[in-house]
Amino acid sequence: MKSLKDKILQEGKVLSDTVLKVDTFLNHQIDPLLMKEIGEEFANRYSDEVITKILTIESSGIAPATMLGLTIGAPVVFARKRKSLTLANNLYSSSVHSFTKNETNEISVSRDFLTADDNVLIVDDFLANGEAVKGLLDIAEQAGANVIGVGIVIEKGFQEGGKNLREQGIRIESLANIKSLANGQVEFYDELI
Amino acid sequence: MKSLKDKILQEGKVLSDTVLKVDTFLNHQIDPLLMKEIGEEFANRYSDEVITKILTIESSGIAPATMLGLTIGAPVVFARKRKSLTLANNLYSSSVHSFTKNETNEISVSRDFLTADDNVLIVDDFLANGEAVKGLLDIAEQAGANVIGVGIVIEKGFQEGGKNLREQGIRIESLANIKSLANGQVEFYDELI
Repeated sequence: MKSLKDKILQEGKVLSDTVLKVDTFLNHQIDPLLMKEIGEEFANRYSDEVITKILTIESSGIAPATMLGLTIGAPVVFARKRKSLTLANNLYSSSVHSFTKNETNEISVSRDFLTADDNVLIVDDFLANGEAVKGLLDIAEQAGANVIGVGIVIEKGFQEGGKNLREQGIRIESLANIKSLANGQVEFYDELI
Repeated sequence: MKSLKDKILQEGKVLSDTVLKVDTFLNHQIDPLLMKEIGEEFANRYSDEVITKILTIESSGIAPATMLGLTIGAPVVFARKRKSLTLANNLYSSSVHSFTKNETNEISVSRDFLTADDNVLIVDDFLANGEAVKGLLDIAEQAGANVIGVGIVIEKGFQEGGKNLREQGIRIESLANIKSLANGQVEFYDELI
């Protein structure tokens, strides 16, 4: 997705060979118009499928997932990272380790919002080691839902998450797939990878 | 806002005289089309003002704030509730107590995304005791930004937050203002209050 890649090249900050900071438009400040384009691109890539539910995880997945939901007219469910007092039971749960934040969170989704009748598209901001996506897949499996695929804004293709998930037969559409962050430079894979 | 009030009456669950659960469209599952209408209504209510930045707080403020941003073409910044390793310094911070979750969070916003040149509209999902809005006002004040006002999806008008903030001269636009949750029933104030 050219406008996304251009934005990454213009505003992304390479903090190390593995860390790309995109706080100006995705992870802290949000560019709503770019999010809308991202939602439309996810819809386009999965236009061959009927999606009844979009599953994401708080917080940075919410904006792109909601824009996809607006485009295709489907509800979004975001997994919560901690249990709140008003969401105390009736949950699907899974453990997700964040290498960036160096912490493990229990993520959970109410049983009310994901069922065996759902065709689910999982959406998230980043795919690196694949921990968040694996947690969301685990939750979808607990619900007996059919997972159509995964939509990722930025994949770190040089890490193992995407490779491992594709080897399991899971369809992943990444709108920008990074080949390398070496020498402070962002290098993308070709569009088709 | 009639469509929002209708949705609350249809799907909201009154858990006690002070707790309204709206997980089917706002706090866990998100209705993207309703969020778009909410964003447009905020834009309409503040159409007399020039907004350069929308300030909200993760996670449930993100969807309505992003839809407002899409409508008026302004960026959204969401305050984070915990510091991540990639956001460790250069921050405005404030403490926010959540009575619903019975916990106090440090919220923070990068100094890169809020400055003395900004005309800020604060957006959040709920206004009850006003703790989150006070934290966001504190952060905007630290930045020297001009706060135009506050946009709230659902105000619990029977609690003190809105009253206290209005007495300080802060403009608050609530799209649904609840007068009472007694006897398991949602009762709204009139539209103009």
